Amino acid sequence: MAETSASPTLLLKDELDIVIPTIRNLDFLEMWRPFFQPYHLIIVQDGDPSKIIKVPGGFDYELYNRNDITRILGPKASCISFKDSACRCFGYLVSKKKYIFTIDDDCFVAKDPSGKEINALQQHIKNLLAPSTPFFFNTLYDPYREGTDFVRGYPFSLREGVPTAVSHGLWLNIPDYDAPTQLVKPLEKNTRFVDAVMTIPKGTLFPMCGMNLAFNRELIGPAMYFGLMGDGQPIGRYDDMWAGWCTKVICDHMGWGVKTGLPYIWHSKASNPFVNLKKEYKGIYWQEELIPFFQSAILPKDCTTVQKCYIELSKQVRAKLGKVDEYFIKLADAMVTWVEAWDELNQTGKSSEVPNGAAK
Amino acid sequence: MAETSASPTLLLKDELDIVIPTIRNLDFLEMWRPFFQPYHLIIVQDGDPSKIIKVPGGFDYELYNRNDITRILGPKASCISFKDSACRCFGYLVSKKKYIFTIDDDCFVAKDPSGKEINALQQHIKNLLAPSTPFFFNTLYDPYREGTDFVRGYPFSLREGVPTAVSHGLWLNIPDYDAPTQLVKPLEKNTRFVDAVMTIPKGTLFPMCGMNLAFNRELIGPAMYFGLMGDGQPIGRYDDMWAGWCTKVICDHMGWGVKTGLPYIWHSKASNPFVNLKKEYKGIYWQEELIPFFQSAILPKDCTTVQKCYIELSKQVRAKLGKVDEYFIKLADAMVTWVEAWDELNQTGKSSEVPNGAAK
Repeated sequence: MAETSASPTLLLKDELDIVIPTIRNLDFLEMWRPFFQPYHLIIVQDGDPSKIIKVPGGFDYELYNRNDITRILGPKASCISFKDSACRCFGYLVSKKKYIFTIDDDCFVAKDPSGKEINALQQHIKNLLAPSTPFFFNTLYDPYREGTDFVRGYPFSLREGVPTAVSHGLWLNIPDYDAPTQLVKPLEKNTRFVDAVMTIPKGTLFPMCGMNLAFNRELIGPAMYFGLMGDGQPIGRYDDMWAGWCTKVICDHMGWGVKTGLPYIWHSKASNPFVNLKKEYKGIYWQEELIPFFQSAILPKDCTTVQKCYIELSKQVRAKLGKVDEYFIKLADAMVTWVEAWDELNQTGKSSEVPNGAAK
Repeated sequence: MAETSASPTLLLKDELDIVIPTIRNLDFLEMWRPFFQPYHLIIVQDGDPSKIIKVPGGFDYELYNRNDITRILGPKASCISFKDSACRCFGYLVSKKKYIFTIDDDCFVAKDPSGKEINALQQHIKNLLAPSTPFFFNTLYDPYREGTDFVRGYPFSLREGVPTAVSHGLWLNIPDYDAPTQLVKPLEKNTRFVDAVMTIPKGTLFPMCGMNLAFNRELIGPAMYFGLMGDGQPIGRYDDMWAGWCTKVICDHMGWGVKTGLPYIWHSKASNPFVNLKKEYKGIYWQEELIPFFQSAILPKDCTTVQKCYIELSKQVRAKLGKVDEYFIKLADAMVTWVEAWDELNQTGKSSEVPNGAAK
């Protein structure tokens, strides 16, 4: 299984940034060194900007704290969450690379059933570089994987696939449960290694977790906004979900693919379920309105760029979800601000204007 | 992994029939004895009815050959294919049980990665008895499996799931490829055991293979028609595909689930790709019209039973696919005949009228 090779690949070395949101020293990088060291890191420091975050030697990185975010974005910094891992999307904004891999600092290298260390980044790159098949389900999963193909009955006209925008990886050990499930099953661990990657079909929504996620920034970056969460907001822990629902609707509209499955990382510790419940409870309630909203959202044909799609979606959020809670009006505004900030920092051919944080 | 237990389960012993289409002696049953012997078999003998099919001792079975089919169905026997494994659906028609498991006679017991023999029937029963989740994708796959649950972001209102109508199992060793893929990759084997069961999302079509398949006959039986294939027909090897597309559209309409994944069987030998190409080539071409047809098929709200859905679908087949080839007009007629035969043999409370083949 090539995706579990422990030897580092230099694939996309100059085309991919690793984005890490954190509030602590990044000792977890030691374990990832053989896989991550050749790549550039963008560290988004959450919380107190005066705190010094230690990064193990030998890594090539730039680090942004809240002061940097405010300096770079000015008033538009309001769209970047504070005291919530949603702040990670600032890293997507300032990256100039084609691909992003983002990972949490409590995620470690997992092992496959043979005991080999899994190079999660390498598998994400494979997922992103191979096409997706959102229009018809292949029962043997990823048809482009070695030793597999499209099965009998799969239309030949669909076998070229479409570009892949998102690769969603999974977690061994601590599963990504909500607070109620954490409370009910405090000891449940995910021990099952499912050796598959699959495309999530067109028209189907899924819960996208930001812990172990990669995407084609050039394709879907402007929609990968993690919303308003944490400090001063009525909700937390729905940042990645929000981004997942928005990007899936837009990928479906644009004809791009979203994959889930391999690679696994080892998620080391569960967050506090009582704290999580406080962050989540409005989300758990609102979600029952959000899912039908996203399931029925239709983007008009003239939405031919991700930016246009995202602005249109923000209008629908304001008009329809604004009735659920005024929070969604604020969120719709922030979506617009995000796209404005994206366009400001990502003007074509002006890559020399890239703002620098505390680049090393 | 409970689904790989080698000990036979007597779950649903009196509520499930095993349907086997064949043209040869059923020696393959020896390997399945520990798992199948407690269940009743319905053997549908294809080809020359004067040939004697040997069934290993100790199995409880009834066997139908072409003469039995003609005797029981009269003129309606025209809807049952001859010289094609599509004839298996006659077994669904004459069964009086709630569940059906159907398997090909070149399928043997597979082993899981630990070397344990897989009780495929037991896993299908588990799949059928547990709910499905067609409205939202769970990234940790079957949320009802022990050690797993719904992940963060999965709407609570959808966690009860819906009844499962179909359980589609997979194949180790010889994959279910079409003739062109067989020709291009004559040596490819499926060696990958993917330890997952998942619901195929609502609105998504898939290629349903009849080799290793179970379903809730009470729910979806009247739509599990394998079409007109083989002798006297312009097409073969699309019987299960046709049934899969029809049942998926109807399950989506009725709010029932279709699962795929575990269990695996060991598929022993590939059929001849040159013969297959002859059977398939019109299907490969027509399929490009069939998929858009089924993807856009809408059943009106007053289709409240599977029979009504199926008759409505036959009308749409006649009206839309009849333009592709006159074969589909014949097929639409056969769909109606099938439902009439179903209703005749499955009148509520008249189970004493069950026709008998060469029941032992």
